[in-house]
Amino acid sequence: MAVPPSTYPRRLLPLFLGLFQGALLLFFALFVTYDEPSAQAEDTNLVANQVYRTFPFFQDIQVMLVVGLGLLLAFLPRYGFSALTHNFLLLNFSMQWALVLQGLLHHFHHGQIHLDLHKLLISEFAAVTVLISVGAILGRASPCQLLVMATCEIPAYLASEWVIVTCLGVLDVGGTITIHVFSCYFGLGVSKALFRATQQPPNPKETPTTSSDLMSLVGTLILWVFWPSFVAVLCQPGDAQHRAILNTLLAMSASAITTVVASSLLERDGKLSPGHLQNGSLAGGVAIGVVADMAMPPVAALALGSLSAVVCVLGFRFLTPLLGRKLTLHDQCGIHNLHGLPGILGAAASVLTILLTSKDTSGSQPSQPSPVGGNASEVVQGQWWGRGVGGQALCQAAGLAVALGTSLLAGLLTGAALRLPCLARPPERLCFDDSLYFRIQDQAESPGPDSSAEEGALALKEQL
Amino acid sequence: MAVPPSTYPRRLLPLFLGLFQGALLLFFALFVTYDEPSAQAEDTNLVANQVYRTFPFFQDIQVMLVVGLGLLLAFLPRYGFSALTHNFLLLNFSMQWALVLQGLLHHFHHGQIHLDLHKLLISEFAAVTVLISVGAILGRASPCQLLVMATCEIPAYLASEWVIVTCLGVLDVGGTITIHVFSCYFGLGVSKALFRATQQPPNPKETPTTSSDLMSLVGTLILWVFWPSFVAVLCQPGDAQHRAILNTLLAMSASAITTVVASSLLERDGKLSPGHLQNGSLAGGVAIGVVADMAMPPVAALALGSLSAVVCVLGFRFLTPLLGRKLTLHDQCGIHNLHGLPGILGAAASVLTILLTSKDTSGSQPSQPSPVGGNASEVVQGQWWGRGVGGQALCQAAGLAVALGTSLLAGLLTGAALRLPCLARPPERLCFDDSLYFRIQDQAESPGPDSSAEEGALALKEQL
Amino acid sequence: MAVPPSTYPRRLLPLFLGLFQGALLLFFALFVTYDEPSAQAEDTNLVANQVYRTFPFFQDIQVMLVVGLGLLLAFLPRYGFSALTHNFLLLNFSMQWALVLQGLLHHFHHGQIHLDLHKLLISEFAAVTVLISVGAILGRASPCQLLVMATCEIPAYLASEWVIVTCLGVLDVGGTITIHVFSCYFGLGVSKALFRATQQPPNPKETPTTSSDLMSLVGTLILWVFWPSFVAVLCQPGDAQHRAILNTLLAMSASAITTVVASSLLERDGKLSPGHLQNGSLAGGVAIGVVADMAMPPVAALALGSLSAVVCVLGFRFLTPLLGRKLTLHDQCGIHNLHGLPGILGAAASVLTILLTSKDTSGSQPSQPSPVGGNASEVVQGQWWGRGVGGQALCQAAGLAVALGTSLLAGLLTGAALRLPCLARPPERLCFDDSLYFRIQDQAESPGPDSSAEEGALALKEQL
Repeated sequence: MAVPPSTYPRRLLPLFLGLFQGALLLFFALFVTYDEPSAQAEDTNLVANQVYRTFPFFQDIQVMLVVGLGLLLAFLPRYGFSALTHNFLLLNFSMQWALVLQGLLHHFHHGQIHLDLHKLLISEFAAVTVLISVGAILGRASPCQLLVMATCEIPAYLASEWVIVTCLGVLDVGGTITIHVFSCYFGLGVSKALFRATQQPPNPKETPTTSSDLMSLVGTLILWVFWPSFVAVLCQPGDAQHRAILNTLLAMSASAITTVVASSLLERDGKLSPGHLQNGSLAGGVAIGVVADMAMPPVAALALGSLSAVVCVLGFRFLTPLLGRKLTLHDQCGIHNLHGLPGILGAAASVLTILLTSKDTSGSQPSQPSPVGGNASEVVQGQWWGRGVGGQALCQAAGLAVALGTSLLAGLLTGAALRLPCLARPPERLCFDDSLYFRIQDQAESPGPDSSAEEGALALKEQL
Repeated sequence: MAVPPSTYPRRLLPLFLGLFQGALLLFFALFVTYDEPSAQAEDTNLVANQVYRTFPFFQDIQVMLVVGLGLLLAFLPRYGFSALTHNFLLLNFSMQWALVLQGLLHHFHHGQIHLDLHKLLISEFAAVTVLISVGAILGRASPCQLLVMATCEIPAYLASEWVIVTCLGVLDVGGTITIHVFSCYFGLGVSKALFRATQQPPNPKETPTTSSDLMSLVGTLILWVFWPSFVAVLCQPGDAQHRAILNTLLAMSASAITTVVASSLLERDGKLSPGHLQNGSLAGGVAIGVVADMAMPPVAALALGSLSAVVCVLGFRFLTPLLGRKLTLHDQCGIHNLHGLPGILGAAASVLTILLTSKDTSGSQPSQPSPVGGNASEVVQGQWWGRGVGGQALCQAAGLAVALGTSLLAGLLTGAALRLPCLARPPERLCFDDSLYFRIQDQAESPGPDSSAEEGALALKEQL
Repeated sequence: MAVPPSTYPRRLLPLFLGLFQGALLLFFALFVTYDEPSAQAEDTNLVANQVYRTFPFFQDIQVMLVVGLGLLLAFLPRYGFSALTHNFLLLNFSMQWALVLQGLLHHFHHGQIHLDLHKLLISEFAAVTVLISVGAILGRASPCQLLVMATCEIPAYLASEWVIVTCLGVLDVGGTITIHVFSCYFGLGVSKALFRATQQPPNPKETPTTSSDLMSLVGTLILWVFWPSFVAVLCQPGDAQHRAILNTLLAMSASAITTVVASSLLERDGKLSPGHLQNGSLAGGVAIGVVADMAMPPVAALALGSLSAVVCVLGFRFLTPLLGRKLTLHDQCGIHNLHGLPGILGAAASVLTILLTSKDTSGSQPSQPSPVGGNASEVVQGQWWGRGVGGQALCQAAGLAVALGTSLLAGLLTGAALRLPCLARPPERLCFDDSLYFRIQDQAESPGPDSSAEEGALALKEQL
């Protein structure tokens, strides 16, 4: 299936992106506008306050996605430039694509879409799903394949999110079910359909070096620091947002400590695995999203953070090798351990929380207008009061099922599409190598054990 | 002209800086004070709100300049420490120097200058011009030369900015004309006058390595994320600031994608050039500054971002080599492509925007007080209403001409001054080398192709 | 005293941390709760405003501690992973431990501790002391030793802080005396008692490489940028907070420039020392904390920043070697120069400031409620007015004495406890080496001069 490099279709990427950017310009010219400037001074103050409330959170999330996640993915020593760049490119592409689709679906009134910071933010949330899913096939897919994947994943996500949040009224302020679970199983579906039953051979370039592991750890720490902003940005202002921030801080702090415990116990010589640290420390943040603004006691956040870290580390140690052997399922970054398992745990925790806390569990103030306009959870609120505690718990479970089902199905279909020869999956010996995509210096100063593989790559490059 | 290392004047730098710091202390002791504490509770609240509104933007800009720009300049593999440190030193020096000059020029009332966060912020904006101009001669100039350059550039910038903003009433909220265009041509002027007609020989230490390119890309991404804060911090709060943020986000997103398209199309083998990515992704932010708060449709921001990226990549591919050959103009970081060309494009866009949008194009609310006190654009507003659309468009063009003229002239004069032998330009074989300025470990672990040059440097170091 | 590696007690770390985490869960389950959701819309608005005012500062401080300080400590070339991870682990452990102790001591009402963002913030401040103290023994202590040290330091800090702030009414908004001076001398006490009179042999792995020095410099720059948030977060909103931000900015800017002057003058060949830059640039931030919100003129902030940088660089050049020779005092990161000396300088400056400014020196508005609830400085205010200027100045000096005394005593006792053999101090040849604690790749790509030491380590690793 891998295309011989001599016919590597170098022009497909700019063609695809160029056409997309042109179409986007046309779409914006025809349909997208800003709000009219507010004539009233009090309106101006309102807009100003919304900007000052949302923008710092928005910037935090941008740092997470562009710098933090990019560095986290840069653990492959010869693929750091590609990891950062592809992550950055996919974020921008997916965000623009989500802006178009969300505009058409939700915000199209009188032939116009009124753009504001909140709409950019929820488009960015949609783009996050792509960035997570990529982790399953990182290093073995061409940029064209990644873009096609993004093209398919965004509408699937929007459909799934619409069913989960709008139809089922699932409470999921931090995107645990809608974003993390969905994107994980979408990515695994793509990986399964793309690589099928072929065991991926171990590649010497897959092994992190100390310095690439360090870069990746810095990425983890950046994500860890700003995660509360990601979870809390869409909360109702006031108590609910305050609680979401605190719950996330507690869960992530517990995750960090428990990861060290679990990693240290699982390895025979008691040494910590960098991969466990890079992922386990964040697992609590994934799980807490769905319950962050609910009225649960602080101990629940700590317990959920600890449990997620344990599940994540166990997943890396036992489940990923097992899935690789039994199902020939390839998961390069271990997204199943960081997003899948903690996401399911979080969904289960939300069912429990709703059942156990009889009083108001969402903490929102119905009288308080949403800070960023038109928040879907307001609709949800009303539904829940009507449906009772048991009904809401059932809905959370149903939401999880919808996320799992649609993501796997859409992922498998997308993965099958990625097998199209024109998308140019790189041959195995050129995988995990920046030099296939970038005009970078030969890394001659670090001759590793893979010099023969490197020579092959260099010989090939001259043909390309 | 390059001084033999044995006579390298090591004491000039601390002497110059020490005298400056002493003079600054004296100046502050005599003339600078804080506002009286406000006696009224409502005044306290007002101050508090101004702090909460401005400070997050200010911190974002500090991260951009200190960390982001520093890392972006660290693409020279043996000059990373110098790039980060000189950038940091110049920022502090220029900011203090601008504080003094701006205080004397604009804020000197009854023998006192009342310091506040807004005055620090606009001094920091003045310092940005120095940090940009340095890019033209990075690695080939001594720290003393850079400090003298900063000493000359700040007053030139203040004069140029005063003519452009206060006299001509040019609208330029993000500093596209006043900062980017000015600093680019100032830097090019310095480079031309400093190096004259001598072609700079290629130096093996100029070639980035994968890890230095990666550091530089991280710097780009940090700049990319926080750029909206830079553009929007001085906007009127409310709609204008909201629009400035959105326009900047759109322009930078379009830049990121278009850079990939353009770079991929221009290179023969379709590979992306790291230099294009590091610069092109930011070009949209440079161009959008001058129109960010105007009432243009969102599509214009996207188009301007795309166009800037194309112009920037084309500049790197064709114009920089051409200028090097024809004019023996040396531009180490390609500031002409990132700041010059997109800046001119932005100025042209502002003319078009003003001509095409007949209604209020600045979106400011005259009744709304400026959030940080004494914003120059308020004056401008009034002028514009009186002068009409055509007049304002003409003024924008005149502002561009003033920026180009003063910067080139001042740059050429400054560059001539930098040829003074006492400023100790490093000899060519010691250019691009941290070990000339820092007591750092010999980089023995990466013996590159430049070992003979390195040996020479080491032999020289013993003499120094 | 160092344990032979074959008996290295690998299970102690997870056991200790696991028990702690379990006990914390129990404690939270029994005693910790959130505030009731506020029923009134105006209460909701109040909570929202507190979140929006405190949270950006809180995030800045998190970035400082997790990313900035972690990178600053990563200057040891083979110990970067450990430095980042141990810093991260200790922050979380100490913060949780401080939350428990502070809850029991200060916030235990009717059997309940009401958790909020402000309490997390002051627990984080307590954790900072541990992160600073670690610098004295970085690389030569096992993680277990560090955790035991944290366990002892937090209660000692809380006791010392209670005496200094609550009993003596010392004004110290940025924690210069309570945090920096205390943690410095605590760390030195630990180092003295742990290593006793044995001169620590120089280890080839102690020497930074260019790339580890670069990482450390990036850490410094991150700390430098966000330092104003650390100093100003607990200030009264309004003028006092505004002034604290400005004073910190001025002091740190002066520090940056003066460090270059001092370092350049002190080295024989005029080259700058990376260590001086990494520390001296921050010295002004340490010293300014105690006077940041007082009504002193701006020139005082500049002068204090300059003086601190000079003292810090002089300390590195002369005092640290002297203490090492005369007192066999080991101070790996030079915390005495960055936190001890500038801290004492700051305390002296606060005495002077109080004596010289006869009018209100704290700038707080008694009528203005504290933004984050229950700020200790409100109590202080009242005391001060009663006690007069001379009394307050005396109290500042007494506070410094208390910090010095308690920290040295507690540090010496803690250091003695760390000599317990079960805590497993690593043998000298395995010090400064990530491979003792992490499953990381052999750094075969950078064979340094320490290959023989490395071989020993590798041979040992197989036994472990």
